[in-house]
Amino acid sequence: MKCTRCREPAEVKLRAHNSAFCRSCFVFFFQRRVARAVEHEKMFDRASRILVAVSGGKDSLALWEVLAEEGYTTVGFHLALGIGGYSSRSRERTEAFAAKRGLDLRVHALADEGLGIPDIVSATRRPACSACGTFKRHYFDAAALEFGCDVIATGHNLDDEAARLLGNVLHWQTDHLARQKPVMQPRHEKFVRKVKPLYLTSELETATYSFMRGIDYVVEECPNAAGASQLTYKAVLDRLEDTSPGTKVGFVRDFVVRGSAAFARDEEGDSARTCEGCGMPSFGALCSFCSLRAEVDRKLAARAKPAPTPSNA
Amino acid sequence: MKCTRCREPAEVKLRAHNSAFCRSCFVFFFQRRVARAVEHEKMFDRASRILVAVSGGKDSLALWEVLAEEGYTTVGFHLALGIGGYSSRSRERTEAFAAKRGLDLRVHALADEGLGIPDIVSATRRPACSACGTFKRHYFDAAALEFGCDVIATGHNLDDEAARLLGNVLHWQTDHLARQKPVMQPRHEKFVRKVKPLYLTSELETATYSFMRGIDYVVEECPNAAGASQLTYKAVLDRLEDTSPGTKVGFVRDFVVRGSAAFARDEEGDSARTCEGCGMPSFGALCSFCSLRAEVDRKLAARAKPAPTPSNA
Repeated sequence: MKCTRCREPAEVKLRAHNSAFCRSCFVFFFQRRVARAVEHEKMFDRASRILVAVSGGKDSLALWEVLAEEGYTTVGFHLALGIGGYSSRSRERTEAFAAKRGLDLRVHALADEGLGIPDIVSATRRPACSACGTFKRHYFDAAALEFGCDVIATGHNLDDEAARLLGNVLHWQTDHLARQKPVMQPRHEKFVRKVKPLYLTSELETATYSFMRGIDYVVEECPNAAGASQLTYKAVLDRLEDTSPGTKVGFVRDFVVRGSAAFARDEEGDSARTCEGCGMPSFGALCSFCSLRAEVDRKLAARAKPAPTPSNA
Repeated sequence: MKCTRCREPAEVKLRAHNSAFCRSCFVFFFQRRVARAVEHEKMFDRASRILVAVSGGKDSLALWEVLAEEGYTTVGFHLALGIGGYSSRSRERTEAFAAKRGLDLRVHALADEGLGIPDIVSATRRPACSACGTFKRHYFDAAALEFGCDVIATGHNLDDEAARLLGNVLHWQTDHLARQKPVMQPRHEKFVRKVKPLYLTSELETATYSFMRGIDYVVEECPNAAGASQLTYKAVLDRLEDTSPGTKVGFVRDFVVRGSAAFARDEEGDSARTCEGCGMPSFGALCSFCSLRAEVDRKLAARAKPAPTPSNA
């Protein structure tokens, strides 16, 4: 197997692209692919200050490295979720990655406020991924504002996007379909654009890039993840990809090019209020983050109260 | 396992409906489900004369039986495709079915004109399923006109519709999505409405109904079928259904209820001309059926001509 680009021996075969690459050509291919997604979708430019949301996994670290190498101005932001050893290992890898490359990393640790994801789940009995999503949205938005960034970049890869798209399509969640885009424009002046530069780059590709570049990332999955349906969707898409290479990239790209317009709609007027808790934009008096925090406080306070003495004791 | 309806021992379990049924309650359930689809989607009524396209397989025979038992006025139409033993066995079963029940069956045999599907494929090298689709559309439309029917009912079941929908979505074929409906209104006065009363009834359900009612159907698949991608789509949907029963019916029903509106568009003005070959509505001078026939004639004539004598012989 020879490299499609330079005819030297290839190290990796990409069936979806009908190509094979040696190490240096794969790195070139990967970086160019990310750069093209950024340019084609007008995600940001040289004047932008980009908040890169880094979890410590292969996707977000690979994204940060590519953007930094391309000369973009980046600020890494790591939200330490307080999910036991998984979170501490994720934070360590992220800090080591940034230190080794001299990159600007900011960390916010939920545990410092005694409010890690497990605490919220145990207080409210909400699904962990739902609480985690609410927290991430809030802290990413707040960090972009605090650090003067004009765009938030996340490491969602092609496999993530394809699985999410399949789930949305199987249930015809038209409101979710309307919001599944590689670039989400802000709907309030305190918010910034959110972009996914890896939306056409597969998990195999980000893992290969990270391996080839010696990025030391957290391999383990979040113990709360494994949302059964997402895993089934990924397995099913792997099967389709295996039968017909390129299925995933076609599914996601053609949705953006042809399908998504069908679900587009006017979303003006959203988030018109200001949250009384945190001052961020909100639909109601409290934003969903502050509502969740208030719910946690209420439930913890109720538990702390001594049980009432039985009246007939 | 007890029958959900009458608490007698159940014979069949339907995970998608979280139900189990004894034989008579399953037959009741199946017939009611078909009747409700017909009524809810306003497919036809007691005054309609329905052309039922019957292949000899479980779906179309089950459909015909249900409609006849419900007292609808039906005309069975069987297109004998000339695909060797498969087609002759299909015709035999269809004729035996109609004779046993005293139902009105009309048969058109392509082989009588020396123009079976294999002849067309061999002359034109087109994919068999594409040629077959063109022929079926033409003869179904022509039969409805000839026999004075005001609606054509086909036996497409839930699994067919879900697989087709998945394929259309994976490639975001928005024009095909706009036409995937349980009821297709005619776009010309010579055409009639086309309906799929089994679109929410799974293959498992039609097979069970046919078995329970002693319908002697052709079990073998068309040897030309096995379009690899349709089979993969069905396998993938089976996997999703297994993990989450009801996925298929939700996928197809929610598309009709919520998703399809996104792809709807104005289709007026289609088929405005009359085919110079057969007199049916057409986009161009010749309809696609007559174009295909002309292509076959041309190619067969070219083959029949003796090879020209080499000039330097």
